[in-house]
Amino acid sequence: MDAIDVIRSKRDGGTLTAEQIDWAVDAYTRGAIAEEQMASLAMAILLNGMTRAEVARWTEAMIRSGERMDWSALDRPTTDKHSTGGVGDKITLPLAPVVAACGAAVPQLSGRGLGHTGGTLDKLESIPGWRASLSNAEMLDVLRSTGAVICAAGSGLAPADRKLYALRDVTGTVESIPLIASSIMSKKIAEGTGALVLDVKVGSGAFMKTAETARELAETMVAIGTDHGLRTVALLTAMDRPLGNAVGNAVEVAESVEVLAGGGPSDVVELTLTLAREMLAAAGVSGKDPADALKDGSAMDVWRRMISAQGGDPDAAMPSARENHVVAAPSSGVLTRLDAYGVGVAAWRLGAGRARKEDPVSFAAGITCHAKPGERVTAGQPLLTLHADDESRFARALESLDGAYSVEENGTPDLHPLVLDRIS
Amino acid sequence: MDAIDVIRSKRDGGTLTAEQIDWAVDAYTRGAIAEEQMASLAMAILLNGMTRAEVARWTEAMIRSGERMDWSALDRPTTDKHSTGGVGDKITLPLAPVVAACGAAVPQLSGRGLGHTGGTLDKLESIPGWRASLSNAEMLDVLRSTGAVICAAGSGLAPADRKLYALRDVTGTVESIPLIASSIMSKKIAEGTGALVLDVKVGSGAFMKTAETARELAETMVAIGTDHGLRTVALLTAMDRPLGNAVGNAVEVAESVEVLAGGGPSDVVELTLTLAREMLAAAGVSGKDPADALKDGSAMDVWRRMISAQGGDPDAAMPSARENHVVAAPSSGVLTRLDAYGVGVAAWRLGAGRARKEDPVSFAAGITCHAKPGERVTAGQPLLTLHADDESRFARALESLDGAYSVEENGTPDLHPLVLDRIS
Repeated sequence: MDAIDVIRSKRDGGTLTAEQIDWAVDAYTRGAIAEEQMASLAMAILLNGMTRAEVARWTEAMIRSGERMDWSALDRPTTDKHSTGGVGDKITLPLAPVVAACGAAVPQLSGRGLGHTGGTLDKLESIPGWRASLSNAEMLDVLRSTGAVICAAGSGLAPADRKLYALRDVTGTVESIPLIASSIMSKKIAEGTGALVLDVKVGSGAFMKTAETARELAETMVAIGTDHGLRTVALLTAMDRPLGNAVGNAVEVAESVEVLAGGGPSDVVELTLTLAREMLAAAGVSGKDPADALKDGSAMDVWRRMISAQGGDPDAAMPSARENHVVAAPSSGVLTRLDAYGVGVAAWRLGAGRARKEDPVSFAAGITCHAKPGERVTAGQPLLTLHADDESRFARALESLDGAYSVEENGTPDLHPLVLDRIS
Repeated sequence: MDAIDVIRSKRDGGTLTAEQIDWAVDAYTRGAIAEEQMASLAMAILLNGMTRAEVARWTEAMIRSGERMDWSALDRPTTDKHSTGGVGDKITLPLAPVVAACGAAVPQLSGRGLGHTGGTLDKLESIPGWRASLSNAEMLDVLRSTGAVICAAGSGLAPADRKLYALRDVTGTVESIPLIASSIMSKKIAEGTGALVLDVKVGSGAFMKTAETARELAETMVAIGTDHGLRTVALLTAMDRPLGNAVGNAVEVAESVEVLAGGGPSDVVELTLTLAREMLAAAGVSGKDPADALKDGSAMDVWRRMISAQGGDPDAAMPSARENHVVAAPSSGVLTRLDAYGVGVAAWRLGAGRARKEDPVSFAAGITCHAKPGERVTAGQPLLTLHADDESRFARALESLDGAYSVEENGTPDLHPLVLDRIS
């Protein structure tokens, strides 16, 4: 087998054989295929696509490059959720405790943010003392004692994907549905969850801008999951406006705690409950309604124990911003548009996200939205509050908000429904 | 400017701007664009193509990455030929002396073979003492004193191309007409020749298997030359069967000397004269007919002085093979086929070529063809003689000859004419 032959097969529109895929993924992981060779292959895959069988095999090969976790020692079924990422998407934070409170176990390996979308681990790290890195044994302990764990994936999990993802990130080969789908699914399958609900975001603030591409990605991932014996469901959900009112790190934790306390923005509550019901159904767990877990405090109880188990203090004061800047409504009328991408880029520029993997994030930086699209506002009332550690951040953040919102005397926003579609 | 933006532009089917091209080529040469990024861009170029303006600018950027040679100190016009490579293509060896004998100067920077096609420098190095590396000053001296020089390109010439070629070679991105054309033309324009004749080979033994792709490459290169003020003509010539009877290194030098002595195979003589007339016409030199230069010994005289000037002994005994193996005609009839690719791969496996850039070649290895397609043969008569330094080479060489020739009782070969087309 030879790297150039594999590249040529895909370059010339062919279908890679199982042997070619197994060899290529293994050889790349071992370093026998050079970075520049895999970059060329990734671009050929991006432009010429992959069949369902190729994607399934590619995913399988990435899983086999590392360890596969096993939760059979637990006395309850496991279920997990993966979101393709959005602006204000803190859903994992209330969701994992809610699902655990209803009787399933949630072994979530999560990631950090890059670009304008936030990362769950960055948000949780704004809680003083909380640590993302756990050994497999620690992870099992937390799961046993609390029913939910959210932590960083160890380096033993799908190392091929880890290496390939870093390469795609610098070679313009991120936007390939087969490569995105196999990357996500290889990690989730290696993670060992028994059921999986995919939250595929659609809109300006999402990776997938249109429902068509989101549906294609969702169908590809559901097919991979199914081919690997994993009960997999995907929802397409709206990411044309931010989710909830808080965008950032500490501000999103605070909003998640509000939801766990029975309050919080209605869209965050609705999506949390919808996803919780899907996760429980996929795991075959019934009995308790997730809405009750929010009302009776049992979800909050799991949250507090889960945060404590990873060194965090659930009662600690959260980091708050030294500098705040209010954007006022320019006129009275209906907020017809609040663009997720514009708000996401602004939060990123305020310091909530990172430009390069090595960069630190600011826990306090972010944006609070005081109105949601469809609501009436009065000229001069606060529309957004920008939070930053340093005043110099505001100018560029405001630039990205320019044109990102509209107030019209009369009008109704043209928005996606919160849940666009369900694929199973 | 950012590497990922440039990659994305081409990946998404766009046209690269002059600024993007200038930046990308320069940044890659400096190491600011990583190998894996250029590999991804090269695959996107291969699959999505380039416009004439993009190819012209890419070529210009590669030329500007290094020095541009200048022959204005010579008292005669310069003209050169470039072949895209074939099996038994020793034409440069008799051609350069013939053209010099007719009054033009030939400053030829040549290359080494890789794969089944031979390299001019490898052939000349089979002459004891001859050396390929000359300084620019030495090159000018040889040109002044003999009218022709064939040597290796120095590292100062189009370093961007040198780096990119090595990358394309290992990333399955060699077969891109814009990249092939800009690679060849950047070196030839930087070489400083005043006129250029391109010999674009067509057929199984050539890089371009069909007349259509060969014509596309020829037209692209003629356009680049024209856009750079270089008088450029291209011929499409046959490479479905080997050129001449000798395939290898020393055996091809011997056949070239036969041509310079007024003999040699008719196809080698015909192509040498056709290309010589084109080179002289492109340089605006008239007066002496190249056929006369072969008859009157003036071309042979240039050859002897040219070889001597680079340390070679034109009278030295050439390396000869320790082992020879005869392939006999399987039946009596017409040799209807002698496939260039099969013969080229056999010669390569005998040791005449190299698998990796670092490999040495065997000067004595190669093949002598005793019949040309269209000629009658008798069962048992020698069809081919294989030459090698080591008997163990024969088995794999014979494998690649299996099915590479056909003898039919009655039949006429279906061959390309020696010259298929002319593009100017």
